[in-house]
Amino acid sequence: MARTQIQADNSDERSLKQQFRRTRQLSQDLIAPLSEADALIQSMEDASPAKWHLAHTTWFFETFLLRDHASAYQLYDQAYPFLFNSYYEAEGDRMLRSRRGMLSRPSVDEILDWRRHVDASMEDLLDEPDCADLIALGIAHEQQHQELLLTDIKHALFQNPIGPAMWGQPQCSAEADDLGWHEHPGGIARIGHEGPDFAFDNEGPAHRVLLEPFAVADRLVTNGEWGDFIADGGYDDPALWLSDGWAWRNTHKISAPLYWRGTESFTHSGFQPRDPHAPVTHISYYEADAFASWAGARLPTEFEWEVIAQGQDRNDGNQLDQAGPPLPTGGRSLFGDCWQFTRSAYLPYPRFQPGAGAVGEYNGKFMSGQFVLKGASCATVRGHSRASYRNFFYPHQRWQFTGLRLAKDI
Amino acid sequence: MARTQIQADNSDERSLKQQFRRTRQLSQDLIAPLSEADALIQSMEDASPAKWHLAHTTWFFETFLLRDHASAYQLYDQAYPFLFNSYYEAEGDRMLRSRRGMLSRPSVDEILDWRRHVDASMEDLLDEPDCADLIALGIAHEQQHQELLLTDIKHALFQNPIGPAMWGQPQCSAEADDLGWHEHPGGIARIGHEGPDFAFDNEGPAHRVLLEPFAVADRLVTNGEWGDFIADGGYDDPALWLSDGWAWRNTHKISAPLYWRGTESFTHSGFQPRDPHAPVTHISYYEADAFASWAGARLPTEFEWEVIAQGQDRNDGNQLDQAGPPLPTGGRSLFGDCWQFTRSAYLPYPRFQPGAGAVGEYNGKFMSGQFVLKGASCATVRGHSRASYRNFFYPHQRWQFTGLRLAKDI
Amino acid sequence: MARTQIQADNSDERSLKQQFRRTRQLSQDLIAPLSEADALIQSMEDASPAKWHLAHTTWFFETFLLRDHASAYQLYDQAYPFLFNSYYEAEGDRMLRSRRGMLSRPSVDEILDWRRHVDASMEDLLDEPDCADLIALGIAHEQQHQELLLTDIKHALFQNPIGPAMWGQPQCSAEADDLGWHEHPGGIARIGHEGPDFAFDNEGPAHRVLLEPFAVADRLVTNGEWGDFIADGGYDDPALWLSDGWAWRNTHKISAPLYWRGTESFTHSGFQPRDPHAPVTHISYYEADAFASWAGARLPTEFEWEVIAQGQDRNDGNQLDQAGPPLPTGGRSLFGDCWQFTRSAYLPYPRFQPGAGAVGEYNGKFMSGQFVLKGASCATVRGHSRASYRNFFYPHQRWQFTGLRLAKDI
Amino acid sequence: MARTQIQADNSDERSLKQQFRRTRQLSQDLIAPLSEADALIQSMEDASPAKWHLAHTTWFFETFLLRDHASAYQLYDQAYPFLFNSYYEAEGDRMLRSRRGMLSRPSVDEILDWRRHVDASMEDLLDEPDCADLIALGIAHEQQHQELLLTDIKHALFQNPIGPAMWGQPQCSAEADDLGWHEHPGGIARIGHEGPDFAFDNEGPAHRVLLEPFAVADRLVTNGEWGDFIADGGYDDPALWLSDGWAWRNTHKISAPLYWRGTESFTHSGFQPRDPHAPVTHISYYEADAFASWAGARLPTEFEWEVIAQGQDRNDGNQLDQAGPPLPTGGRSLFGDCWQFTRSAYLPYPRFQPGAGAVGEYNGKFMSGQFVLKGASCATVRGHSRASYRNFFYPHQRWQFTGLRLAKDI
Repeated sequence: MARTQIQADNSDERSLKQQFRRTRQLSQDLIAPLSEADALIQSMEDASPAKWHLAHTTWFFETFLLRDHASAYQLYDQAYPFLFNSYYEAEGDRMLRSRRGMLSRPSVDEILDWRRHVDASMEDLLDEPDCADLIALGIAHEQQHQELLLTDIKHALFQNPIGPAMWGQPQCSAEADDLGWHEHPGGIARIGHEGPDFAFDNEGPAHRVLLEPFAVADRLVTNGEWGDFIADGGYDDPALWLSDGWAWRNTHKISAPLYWRGTESFTHSGFQPRDPHAPVTHISYYEADAFASWAGARLPTEFEWEVIAQGQDRNDGNQLDQAGPPLPTGGRSLFGDCWQFTRSAYLPYPRFQPGAGAVGEYNGKFMSGQFVLKGASCATVRGHSRASYRNFFYPHQRWQFTGLRLAKDI
Repeated sequence: MARTQIQADNSDERSLKQQFRRTRQLSQDLIAPLSEADALIQSMEDASPAKWHLAHTTWFFETFLLRDHASAYQLYDQAYPFLFNSYYEAEGDRMLRSRRGMLSRPSVDEILDWRRHVDASMEDLLDEPDCADLIALGIAHEQQHQELLLTDIKHALFQNPIGPAMWGQPQCSAEADDLGWHEHPGGIARIGHEGPDFAFDNEGPAHRVLLEPFAVADRLVTNGEWGDFIADGGYDDPALWLSDGWAWRNTHKISAPLYWRGTESFTHSGFQPRDPHAPVTHISYYEADAFASWAGARLPTEFEWEVIAQGQDRNDGNQLDQAGPPLPTGGRSLFGDCWQFTRSAYLPYPRFQPGAGAVGEYNGKFMSGQFVLKGASCATVRGHSRASYRNFFYPHQRWQFTGLRLAKDI
Repeated sequence: MARTQIQADNSDERSLKQQFRRTRQLSQDLIAPLSEADALIQSMEDASPAKWHLAHTTWFFETFLLRDHASAYQLYDQAYPFLFNSYYEAEGDRMLRSRRGMLSRPSVDEILDWRRHVDASMEDLLDEPDCADLIALGIAHEQQHQELLLTDIKHALFQNPIGPAMWGQPQCSAEADDLGWHEHPGGIARIGHEGPDFAFDNEGPAHRVLLEPFAVADRLVTNGEWGDFIADGGYDDPALWLSDGWAWRNTHKISAPLYWRGTESFTHSGFQPRDPHAPVTHISYYEADAFASWAGARLPTEFEWEVIAQGQDRNDGNQLDQAGPPLPTGGRSLFGDCWQFTRSAYLPYPRFQPGAGAVGEYNGKFMSGQFVLKGASCATVRGHSRASYRNFFYPHQRWQFTGLRLAKDI
Repeated sequence: MARTQIQADNSDERSLKQQFRRTRQLSQDLIAPLSEADALIQSMEDASPAKWHLAHTTWFFETFLLRDHASAYQLYDQAYPFLFNSYYEAEGDRMLRSRRGMLSRPSVDEILDWRRHVDASMEDLLDEPDCADLIALGIAHEQQHQELLLTDIKHALFQNPIGPAMWGQPQCSAEADDLGWHEHPGGIARIGHEGPDFAFDNEGPAHRVLLEPFAVADRLVTNGEWGDFIADGGYDDPALWLSDGWAWRNTHKISAPLYWRGTESFTHSGFQPRDPHAPVTHISYYEADAFASWAGARLPTEFEWEVIAQGQDRNDGNQLDQAGPPLPTGGRSLFGDCWQFTRSAYLPYPRFQPGAGAVGEYNGKFMSGQFVLKGASCATVRGHSRASYRNFFYPHQRWQFTGLRLAKDI
């Protein structure tokens, strides 16, 4: 975390406090429909149990705020740091990631007790100006884990042949409009986060880039369009695919987005009819790239996307407002519905320096092999993202709400 | 299942009924201390979640008794056969074994509801003479799964770094007496199950074997003796080991029995001091064979063991009487404490024929690559085993209560 | 090696010397049609390069005879023991088995130079009575590697899509007679090697076994009969298969014996039309067992086979007389054509004791997980085998000339 | 291959012809010191046998020139396209990459016969203006395989514990000068290939980029400096490493560059003393990045490197002039010694379009997960590379002559 970049909005301390409380409450709301057993499942190494997210976000506040900044704070349980550290090497040993599903104890109730204890202990620090940056980071961190919790539990429930639902079916219907384009003449543009608001270290330093003329679609690719791609043999033509993508498709026998089954898709409300007008989601970079090739277009770069988004309201679109089933529905906003693959690798911006200490491990150490995604999804807490936000995943991963916005040269 | 061999004790129908009820109750008692989350964990492919055992044993009665023999019985849930069939190919498709830990639904309570429904439906069949054989098989089947439930949940809880206990600590202490020997002059002996009582198909047909003079130890090898083996470099001398065993030891970096940690062992009551006088347990065939070589002795054959056991009470020794922590304590009985490795491969007896239909898959199809174990363990329901009983596991497996009784030529 | 069992025929020392020379020559004849590149291929971990067999058999004589018994003998090359030790732990470190195909150096010519050097140095020891046992063991050891060389190079050449031949096509045709049975009334029989002739340690001690009445077929199962098994869906019916076998069949998509392609089979002479009257070969234990179940018969035990073979000439049948393409052709001999699976696990005989030192690792340490095969194959040097000979392989292995002789209870 | 970019130098057709002949001859010179067995080894899936390179480069000319452009040309052998196609999906089925080491046939001599046949058949096409682009591509393709042949055979010989040499030791000594910096004020720069000379499609289209002020070191990092990194615990401090890199280091137990052994390194001349003044080589991206972090510097971007190199002679430095042992020796040239990792992911330039047909698979389909390397190595044919040249490998690969040139912000 680069200190110079993270400036929580100290002018309104109440808002940080409220944001903290709202965030902490939302995690608990998200887990409410889950049984102890639901909350334990780890369906693959990329995913974590729901209860682990509850605990790990608490560990973050206990470690980086209470332990480091609250004098006389005693660890709630000596074993928890080992159990609930995720990947911070500087914080010592930790559970093997792949074995998180083995932790039936502590129970969800015990973790909730711990949460309450930590939240109560945090109250004093919430007014401490020196801690505002770290608290803002902790809130953003928990919001990220809220989205992971939603995508991980979806993947977990999907493993069950009976296709369980954790929420009732949402009332929503999508309408796909004609495709329009945001055109841009190219030239020098300013990229990256600036100003006092919170942002992750990887969004800066702000700097200039040079763009060629381009256009970015004004809506996402839909399920119906994806069906055309399938019908046209898109999954079977190696000429459309990256070499690694073709190997992945062969190894895993991929022939449709994740969660598709006949005319249905799996959702947090179980299997539901798939809306052809809604944005396609749960696709890998390989699939997105192959689709774009098939469509005679390409993926945007992260810079192209950001330049277009700079004029838009980050709070727009289909984002998460409260606990309930996330589902892409479509619209013209650049934010919401699905994270959008760019053809930009996730790499450091010029003069990027990771912060010192354990929180410096937050973003920089993942800068190889991954691609940048922009926007926000229906499972992203509204307002969490911004134009400069850089999400990142490996090109084969698709359990997130990932989608596709076409781009082209003009 | 060979029909001719399975003759439930029809002279006392009440006893079959009582045995059914007692068995069904015990499974529920065993799962009582577990949370929903505990009951879901599958720690490795060899093991199953506790709740799966609850359900699978119910599936057995629903399928082979109610579906096949109770007219007008309707399946409780159409999805359950797919979820809870274990390995019966003749019964159609089933869940991948390795994914049983993904079934957070149905919940334990829903499975218990199903159990009650099946048990109630079974009441009429319990008086049906034609069904007695199959009911006796179902009871024996459930008793086997009770032992598996106990060993699987032990392995599951062990995965947790905090070492949870599911029961309080038992009051028991072991006393290891001097080693004596059961001597036998050799000659022709009769082996295998005979008579009207229930036995598995693999215990017959009864037949004669020719034995050389031999002796079998009158007690099991103890933790203390195993400590001597370790101290003497037993795990580091390839000359003591089978070739496959040495490769297994190298791959998995084996240097002690499963569950050993310093001077403690993991138990159903968490980590507890290890009693040097108690029988060593949770060892593989490879380790047992290496120890015997080190001790200048050998493992008995299944026939040698059985001949000695024929004169002994199968109900003796440290076996499971009720829900509670199983723990080897030692004694002179051939039954109880630990299953005992023999140097006999698990193979068909002369003229063995598996039964027709799905229940014919019970034992015969596992007759390659495994070794026979004799006796009974502290986790075996008392009376479940007998002198002719043939338990079997692969030589690397050690999550059962496996132990070692030495033998020698005389 | 149990010294008491290995008594080379000292009454005719010339014959040991001649046998040594003939054996050493045959290895070189076998490799003659191979290029440097052919001789290097290692097609799987179970197999070794042809040149490695040439070298390893030489290492055996250099190590256990020259180094240990020829005063003042100097190692030909200090690196060779590391390169060419196979699995003798007592002989120190060695190449990873799976990397033998990386040894382009030393060249075949360099290995042949080493052979000549070792053979010349051996001349004195060939007259040394104290060495006769070890020399007989070394000869038998090299004969085993000659068969492995033949089966390994067959597997290696098979990997090549152009299906190369190392020899011209043999002139032979098979004729399958009606199936008859060798009947036996059962009772006590004597099993295992006795007398002064050479035998491996695992063939003893001789001892008695008790047999039930049985019959063993007087010829092997043929390709034609195997075709009937396939046509009848034998590979697709799980009821015929052992559980491990069914998993193996599924994982490896097995639907025919190794080397079958349409109506042809791969041979040392390339792909050749498959003779329906010739014995089927290159089958696994799993396949053999499934076929026997399908045929309403079973595999013989090793004891049943041996008792029938005791009255037969071990030099009979289709065995290897000189370098040239081995191919099963059929006949009534119990020896030759194919090694025959028994349903006996490879385990120690009563009172078996492996010898001291490195040669004690010859056989005993492989006594888990494997099955005994009896007889001899078309790739076995004539006279190498005998009624008491115990060959052994894992149940999935099938790159040897393995076949099937039915048995039944009577 | 983008046709518009590949303009062979038609003004001097003689030179294309000479270049073709020289290139074809060099491949044969490189393989001259190898035995049939050396030429067969495939040490890992990333590498190919030396003979395969000989054949595959011939397949390229036979397929894309003779088959497509020489009327009446008949394939030399119908099996060769299947055996020697590398990855061109449009050209149909092909050998599994991992099984190339199984092709003992055709022999090296047979492949050389084929080469002669193809070369003779090519003579007419060498004067054909329409074919000049494809011939230039074929030459560049073969030059790439010459470098691979050298790095693959080095890796193959290294597998052998006796450390064979294929050439005598080169006379050379390195002198590491003080580190200086090429400074650049930043601003808009022009990147990518322009003009009529040959270049790969991935080097274009030429376009502008915006650079911040930076400096690039005027020599490579040396073995001595790498030794300091090791001595300072560089391989043991997770804070220096990318997350994927740390996992790779742990899994493979990496503690030094590939080929290091004590104070020696493995070379084409066997193990040789390592010169502390020579550039370090055979490092992964992960190692290069960790070193740069440790040194308080960073890797250059591909654009920074290219801008500095635009003023330099691509024929300078330690590059390959003839068959013989390649070895980094140091110097001030940006070209030669080692390929230099950049922190730029290998991605398409703006408006990049792969060519139509099979040759369009040349570069574009590899654009995910890899990093760009710039410069040339001691195993690169002199003149093959250029400032705009983009080599690419995965971040864990290090069997190429890869090295490291530091960069920094100014």
